[in-house]
Amino acid sequence: MSEESLEGNCLVAQSGGPTAVINASVAGVVSEALNHECIGEIYGGLNGVLGILKEDLIDLAEESQQNIRGLRYTPASALGTCRYKLEKEEDFERVIEVFQAHEIRYFFYIGGNDSQDTADKISKLAQDRGHEMRVIGIPKTIDNDLVGTDHTPGYGSVVKYICTVVREFTLDHEAMGQHDLVSIIEVMGRNAGWIAAGATLAKRRDNPKDPPHLIYLPESNFSREKFLEDIQGVLKKERHCLVVVGEGLRDKDGNYLANASTSKDDFGHEQLGGVGDYLATFVEQNLAVKARSAKLGTGQRAAAHCSSQTDNDEAFLCGQAAVQAAIAGETDKMVTLVRGEGDPYTCETGLVDLSEVANGVKEIPESWIAEDGVSLAFQFIKYAQPLIQGEVEVPHENGLPQYVRLSKKRIRRVLDKYVISD
Amino acid sequence: MSEESLEGNCLVAQSGGPTAVINASVAGVVSEALNHECIGEIYGGLNGVLGILKEDLIDLAEESQQNIRGLRYTPASALGTCRYKLEKEEDFERVIEVFQAHEIRYFFYIGGNDSQDTADKISKLAQDRGHEMRVIGIPKTIDNDLVGTDHTPGYGSVVKYICTVVREFTLDHEAMGQHDLVSIIEVMGRNAGWIAAGATLAKRRDNPKDPPHLIYLPESNFSREKFLEDIQGVLKKERHCLVVVGEGLRDKDGNYLANASTSKDDFGHEQLGGVGDYLATFVEQNLAVKARSAKLGTGQRAAAHCSSQTDNDEAFLCGQAAVQAAIAGETDKMVTLVRGEGDPYTCETGLVDLSEVANGVKEIPESWIAEDGVSLAFQFIKYAQPLIQGEVEVPHENGLPQYVRLSKKRIRRVLDKYVISD
Repeated sequence: MSEESLEGNCLVAQSGGPTAVINASVAGVVSEALNHECIGEIYGGLNGVLGILKEDLIDLAEESQQNIRGLRYTPASALGTCRYKLEKEEDFERVIEVFQAHEIRYFFYIGGNDSQDTADKISKLAQDRGHEMRVIGIPKTIDNDLVGTDHTPGYGSVVKYICTVVREFTLDHEAMGQHDLVSIIEVMGRNAGWIAAGATLAKRRDNPKDPPHLIYLPESNFSREKFLEDIQGVLKKERHCLVVVGEGLRDKDGNYLANASTSKDDFGHEQLGGVGDYLATFVEQNLAVKARSAKLGTGQRAAAHCSSQTDNDEAFLCGQAAVQAAIAGETDKMVTLVRGEGDPYTCETGLVDLSEVANGVKEIPESWIAEDGVSLAFQFIKYAQPLIQGEVEVPHENGLPQYVRLSKKRIRRVLDKYVISD
Repeated sequence: MSEESLEGNCLVAQSGGPTAVINASVAGVVSEALNHECIGEIYGGLNGVLGILKEDLIDLAEESQQNIRGLRYTPASALGTCRYKLEKEEDFERVIEVFQAHEIRYFFYIGGNDSQDTADKISKLAQDRGHEMRVIGIPKTIDNDLVGTDHTPGYGSVVKYICTVVREFTLDHEAMGQHDLVSIIEVMGRNAGWIAAGATLAKRRDNPKDPPHLIYLPESNFSREKFLEDIQGVLKKERHCLVVVGEGLRDKDGNYLANASTSKDDFGHEQLGGVGDYLATFVEQNLAVKARSAKLGTGQRAAAHCSSQTDNDEAFLCGQAAVQAAIAGETDKMVTLVRGEGDPYTCETGLVDLSEVANGVKEIPESWIAEDGVSLAFQFIKYAQPLIQGEVEVPHENGLPQYVRLSKKRIRRVLDKYVISD
């Protein structure tokens, strides 16, 4: 840790899938950066590393205060995001060139594990090239699968929205209660089932039989036979059955259950979808009951209208903490959320080496999944419950949420144009 | 109109698909009924006409005031609903028998066109049998397809939720803006495209190019060729394309585009679904772009967490107005919403003959659909905009909406058990 003051400009960028609170982290960076005289300009990189490669940088200090305040409740990625993976040597060299040209001494990268890996590599290359710079990652992912942090900003909000929707589906089911009825709600979550698991919070306190009756996680090998048995068991007792499934369900051989699309993103992740529809059809074909499906789609990760104030506050805090850590001389670290011991829930920030986070995946502890494989143990509920507390107030105009768009005033390019080779 | 005071009990029941505000109408009935001494007991029929046939009646006056107040923001159907169609003569006779046994002199039936038809038949049979009774229908349907009323309670709320979701999808799309991307959002609406059309309100004022870029209504014959052309046209200009489709899309021969399930409900309506997934796959197969789908499912009609205060107030008002009309001697009528002329928007209630409403379907006027067939004219926007104004405040507990369940204290059955023949 070098404690001397480092003078220069700062750059913040966002990467990976949008969330309801990723912009709150940008707001945290900007508001904290303004407090430190050693930070000159506050730049934003458009569309993650792509904006750095292309020198597409904006001056965040030029944004109105209303806009920066508006980032607190505006979902998705106000700076734009990307799934481009820095791999080629010339790309990395270009990043360093851009950082040198604009005297970037503080780099804050908000993203998931792939993004933290990118930040780690950039940090190490900068050291290698003798460009003094402090690089701090800011955690972000609805998937909650980052190692080194208790949980990730973005997770609490997606869970809050899904649970709200499940409660409303539940009342709809109960109202139609004269017939056997199965609803399958498909939620996001590629490898780890944190999001699907979170749906368990929709149960009212002391009502363990409340929907969702069955939750299927990508972690558990999915068996079609057991699935039908599970549903029949619930229908017998409850007359209706509400199921939540993670999009990444796989059978015991590791094959995805449904794969509506065969496309892959730039990181080679398979794009999943359609498992809800698939299972609803499977139920109708095999049991004499009506089955429906719902798929909230990518809107679920951007559902700021129903987001968690706790999540939002923590995302903001992570942005502030990143700047404070960098000012204090830290580099090559990611901000973490550290849960206090005991009740009530408290949370402060910590730091972890980027290399430790990069490309790791945090799975749900096995003991947090109940023995039936379709519900969650109390440890999970105790863990997740605090993360959905509090309602973010979104200003409305003309009946709809009034989200902000940054004015995105570009700073002057000083380098030659760079062509990204595909 | 017989103006003399009629002494007896009142019964309210709900029918058809749940909505975010149908319970507000029950609250309106109960609170108004309490004001009139000629009304003795205030009963609720469980699960629509099924509850009447089975003598499954509850005492609504026994419910706590908290519960009745909670109905104002609790979605779905607190009394339960049904899609059972009264057709057999013995069923009708049984209804009259139950009404006579419990001295029901006021019957309020909250539902869509099928339900108003049922109410009309019951009313006429009661007259025939010499059972003096006043029957008033209360409009309800997210589909907004009832004739005789300017709009229907339930519609404004589903549109508000869909538009909120579309705005959030839009930000998500914009954030990912480096690639061509198509999202298809499938919304409810079997025959009339009022719900899909409502999504146009998601566009910001003075931003006609905002998503949804394309809206396909069941009214317009769907052409697969034009669909692909439309999308290519949008992608060329906007780089991304957000499409809203009504579930009931049909081609020029009247065939449903997609029909994931072949089941029919008790009224013979085909249960639709899957057109969003179908079209996303169709796009990927025919255009070299990534396409995603989302399907909000039946949760959309129960999304009280994002419902319209205007809609809610009007649903309550319809409940009150029904009681007032019956007390004033009206019968065999449905309450209507009557829009005031000029700006700002005002609305009061009126009455229309049940027979006029029964089984009619109100379609969107052709001139309200723009010439391109995929957007709405200003007349539609002017019509729909006021209906989504204001945000219903839902109390939260432990991070989630706290909806009420009625305690449903059954009244004593006095008749022999009735077996409903299938």
